[in-house]
Amino acid sequence: MNSRQMVLATFIHNSGAHPGGWRYGADADQHDVDHYVRLAKTAERGKLHCYFSGDQQGLPMIKGRDAYAATDYAGKLEPTTLLAALAMVTSDIGLIGTVSTTYNEPYAVARRMASLDHITKGRAGWNVVTSAGNSEARNFGHDRLMDHDLRYERAEEFVDVVKALWDSWEDDAVLRDKASARYFDPARLRQLNHKGRFFNVAGPLNVGRPPQGHPVIVQAGGSGPGRALSARTADLVFTAQSSKDKAVAFYDDMKARAAAFGRNPAHMAVLPSVQLLVRSTEAEARAAQEELLHLIPDALAWATLQMQIGFDLSDYGPDDKMPDIPLTNGGQWVQQELVRMARAEDLTLGQLAKRATVSRASFSMAGTPEQVADMMEDWFRAGAADGFSLSPNYLPGGLEDFVDQVVPILQKRGLFRTEYQGDTLRDNLGIPRPAHAQMGHEPDLWA
Amino acid sequence: MNSRQMVLATFIHNSGAHPGGWRYGADADQHDVDHYVRLAKTAERGKLHCYFSGDQQGLPMIKGRDAYAATDYAGKLEPTTLLAALAMVTSDIGLIGTVSTTYNEPYAVARRMASLDHITKGRAGWNVVTSAGNSEARNFGHDRLMDHDLRYERAEEFVDVVKALWDSWEDDAVLRDKASARYFDPARLRQLNHKGRFFNVAGPLNVGRPPQGHPVIVQAGGSGPGRALSARTADLVFTAQSSKDKAVAFYDDMKARAAAFGRNPAHMAVLPSVQLLVRSTEAEARAAQEELLHLIPDALAWATLQMQIGFDLSDYGPDDKMPDIPLTNGGQWVQQELVRMARAEDLTLGQLAKRATVSRASFSMAGTPEQVADMMEDWFRAGAADGFSLSPNYLPGGLEDFVDQVVPILQKRGLFRTEYQGDTLRDNLGIPRPAHAQMGHEPDLWA
Repeated sequence: MNSRQMVLATFIHNSGAHPGGWRYGADADQHDVDHYVRLAKTAERGKLHCYFSGDQQGLPMIKGRDAYAATDYAGKLEPTTLLAALAMVTSDIGLIGTVSTTYNEPYAVARRMASLDHITKGRAGWNVVTSAGNSEARNFGHDRLMDHDLRYERAEEFVDVVKALWDSWEDDAVLRDKASARYFDPARLRQLNHKGRFFNVAGPLNVGRPPQGHPVIVQAGGSGPGRALSARTADLVFTAQSSKDKAVAFYDDMKARAAAFGRNPAHMAVLPSVQLLVRSTEAEARAAQEELLHLIPDALAWATLQMQIGFDLSDYGPDDKMPDIPLTNGGQWVQQELVRMARAEDLTLGQLAKRATVSRASFSMAGTPEQVADMMEDWFRAGAADGFSLSPNYLPGGLEDFVDQVVPILQKRGLFRTEYQGDTLRDNLGIPRPAHAQMGHEPDLWA
Repeated sequence: MNSRQMVLATFIHNSGAHPGGWRYGADADQHDVDHYVRLAKTAERGKLHCYFSGDQQGLPMIKGRDAYAATDYAGKLEPTTLLAALAMVTSDIGLIGTVSTTYNEPYAVARRMASLDHITKGRAGWNVVTSAGNSEARNFGHDRLMDHDLRYERAEEFVDVVKALWDSWEDDAVLRDKASARYFDPARLRQLNHKGRFFNVAGPLNVGRPPQGHPVIVQAGGSGPGRALSARTADLVFTAQSSKDKAVAFYDDMKARAAAFGRNPAHMAVLPSVQLLVRSTEAEARAAQEELLHLIPDALAWATLQMQIGFDLSDYGPDDKMPDIPLTNGGQWVQQELVRMARAEDLTLGQLAKRATVSRASFSMAGTPEQVADMMEDWFRAGAADGFSLSPNYLPGGLEDFVDQVVPILQKRGLFRTEYQGDTLRDNLGIPRPAHAQMGHEPDLWA
């Protein structure tokens, strides 16, 4: 079938996206690779386009010792090593990992992602983020977080340098010609000699051009600078949108921004994240939703709200309304979505805290498989989404329920494929392989 | 059997340690993970203790475009991602990767190695190096290489911070107690708040304590500062020694240095590297050795010598003798070994160039399986080695020959085990798991 179909990803968040998820689901050990192997195989069984592993470079800050102890945030596996392992137990699904531009060097990230693209044989993706926590800053020699806009300026240059490093080898640079004693063709390697505001990088990379040319670029920034970075560089845009109308507005804005950069908007897929809970009946779905909510300690909800709005609520109580707060230097999009939600729905801080803890400003729904499929079809046809990033509430059950109960309905409706259609993640997404950018100088290493 | 047995590792260098190796062996693709999968499985079939993947953060500098084109040095996979992939297709062998202390941050390395130790279920090792090339420096914003001794001072602090980060979680910090809503015990996490000459790192790590407590620490520095770092911190010491006598002297020096740091010298294994070529008869072995040598273009040999001694030989020819040269800022041990070899054996620069290209100052031998086993037994019993790091000349054949023809002889003589004896690399090496160092403060994240 040739009509447009959904792109589906799954965002694997520790033991589940719902803060009550780890107490609800199976006894998942976040330090055991087998937990993730099971999830990746399940996602591949469902023919999902990609498995997405998030990351931070430190512990997220949540005030209150008991609140913290109730979360599954403190420890888990690092994405690039985890995804390389998952490459060996899967064969088709894309493997996307978060690597920050804030405390890393572009040469190091370019080679790890290039290596991952070779190991996955063309299934790697890089989620480009900036690190937004003071606790992360303090693990890397800084007293506090870098300024928000400065972080994004650094990210822009970082992505450009990484892409140039991936292009520092032409596709056919490796010869392995034993007779002529030429392992590679030196004329097909290039130096960048990049000298920028943040980075000076000579190159060439010491890994050959990735199978996909460039691993798939993923971005999720919702602020102005974040949207600009996405529109210019991202192949996949992940976003948290609390309603279909807001998602349509975001979708239109992003497609227009991509076009303004001279890009084909169809080559950038916009995927709102959805937290889904699937049960055979509405009543069962509502009951499961209530049980999950019940499993979140109040202290954790309150601490999470403070973290997400970047504001100390010690002077307020759960029955108060949202005060006026200054723009955070952290994740501005999430902050503003929560403020907007509190005002629009006239929520108390206590109500908002539970909402913030559950959904992080993304769309959350509990229902039957048909209801969930209806919602997805509605958003998809309304121009709110090219597909979705599923954040299962609890793992592994939440993902298994989706794959076994919702995917078949989407397939029957012709909204989702029944088989992987290409060899690489780009093939499967229908996003073209970037041509090699001719650039730079022959390396002076052999001058 | 309870008597002392050899530790055996294999150092996998691109398509083979011999520069003619890629033209001699199978058509190995260094960007294809299957090349390394085959090697790791072969090494595990031979019950070797570890598979060792080297690394540089840039292209090695070799002058001369044709010389460069004749090498297999330019591109390959990055070790931490590669080893995570190999973890999934092996079950017992240790997986050691090089990660530099020079252009990385300790928090990032601590978490990647901790993650690898979880993924391998306790089989990870970290080869601690300093980056010794100007081409690497220029990929990370520096005009030239950091001073040799300064690099080692940074490495000392780097290793200490990484170990402290691994200890920032107690072993039993993860509770996953659903009933009490405690995923982990906050009292069992610690902040370092390290403020040193090179690094300020708060911690705690966002990965739980590695299964081995600390992944195995590997070091190969031969200079004074390099030996000091090894003696204080390394579980395994890899070294290039050109003769048994020199190996005995190095071995004694390292064991004495370890004891001077208050360590049990038996808990630090010293492994000289050996480049072995195994054939059924001596004549075949010599013929294969000649053929390999023939496959190295003269231009490559000359360029390699210049790189290894860190000196421009434009004013000299292959018939000249080694001039007096200043101490390099790069790898001083290799430089001095080559100068010593040239003087001791009265070699011309042309002869030295071939030797330098083949063996990098380590011991090289071609012979029958019995002869090779005799040499290894001789060194082992003479106190020159706790075992060996095998650098196969060509891959995969060179490793397969060793595993199939030499290992059975060593086993028959009782010099090498016939089965893996423990679950982790430390178990298999007979090196104790480090106790958790109680330290620091409870994190202020939840204050």
